Amino acid sequence: MARWDPGAEERLRKAALELYAAHGYDAVTVNQIAEHAGLTRRSYFRYFPDKREVLFAGSERLAPAVVEAIRAVDPAVAPWPAVLQAAEVIGAQLAEIAQNSDVRRAVIAASPELQERERTKLAAVTDALRGGLEERGLSTEDAALIAEVGSAVFQNAFSRWIDGGGQQTFRSCLDAVVGSLRGELFQLDD
Amino acid sequence: MARWDPGAEERLRKAALELYAAHGYDAVTVNQIAEHAGLTRRSYFRYFPDKREVLFAGSERLAPAVVEAIRAVDPAVAPWPAVLQAAEVIGAQLAEIAQNSDVRRAVIAASPELQERERTKLAAVTDALRGGLEERGLSTEDAALIAEVGSAVFQNAFSRWIDGGGQQTFRSCLDAVVGSLRGELFQLDD
Repeated sequence: MARWDPGAEERLRKAALELYAAHGYDAVTVNQIAEHAGLTRRSYFRYFPDKREVLFAGSERLAPAVVEAIRAVDPAVAPWPAVLQAAEVIGAQLAEIAQNSDVRRAVIAASPELQERERTKLAAVTDALRGGLEERGLSTEDAALIAEVGSAVFQNAFSRWIDGGGQQTFRSCLDAVVGSLRGELFQLDD
Repeated sequence: MARWDPGAEERLRKAALELYAAHGYDAVTVNQIAEHAGLTRRSYFRYFPDKREVLFAGSERLAPAVVEAIRAVDPAVAPWPAVLQAAEVIGAQLAEIAQNSDVRRAVIAASPELQERERTKLAAVTDALRGGLEERGLSTEDAALIAEVGSAVFQNAFSRWIDGGGQQTFRSCLDAVVGSLRGELFQLDD
């Protein structure tokens, strides 16, 4: 096998998802993933440090992307509309590259260890957003509040996007969530 | 030392907080905590399974308490006002029994391991709230959204209560957070 195999990383991810979905995360080994992808164990470890990170590869780029997206919004825009603009940008980027998000979500939901990792990742993103909101002049307390709510809105919109099989735009899912929030929290018609 | 020592558990908690705050969570041992509390290592393990859980004792009661509080709200009340009523009840109970919350918060904020444990605990509470909202007729998606927002609002209010040194009522902190949310999200004056 050639050392340089441009499709290897993606094949490993796909193989891992398939096996985790079929047999459960705990029951699958790195050897099985590598074999299922037609690669060696050694190749696997060239791309991922362990059997968990194959599900989270690239996630370390999310927090910096959020900071960049919120900084790119006109400083004259108020904090919450700025959060929604940044969410739309990030959501559209994720929707573009996301594959098998429904399978990934189900695999994570079935494993406390993976849920913990997912929460840690999301906390880093929320923290990045909090920093971005402080830069826009919010107090520490309000920045924390709006970042938490913004993070919840984003996750909920992305989950609705997955539910819709990726057929809707991320923007329409985000609009639906904001509409729910207005209706439920403040009995405002949209 | 008598086997039955009614103040032992509380002394151990206080000793752990003092030592964690002074030396950092990682640097402190169970032996040191026990000694600082005037107790033996064996006594320590009668109350807590490890050096982490001394910080989270009782937290397993929070999710059932949330379910109980939301079920106690008149079924005619809409979901979000019901969340706020439940939050007020739970917050007042916590404010009553909370001790050294500011020290505990600082100790947790300084340790990734403890933050992870805290997030897991909060996720269980959010999940309980989600279930309570589904019982009140919200769709799965809206229940998840409102539970996440409710959880963020509660945490933020409790953090403000700690910041105020416990001098304000929890209710006034909750009102301040809801006011911020209305103002920031929907530019509504309170």
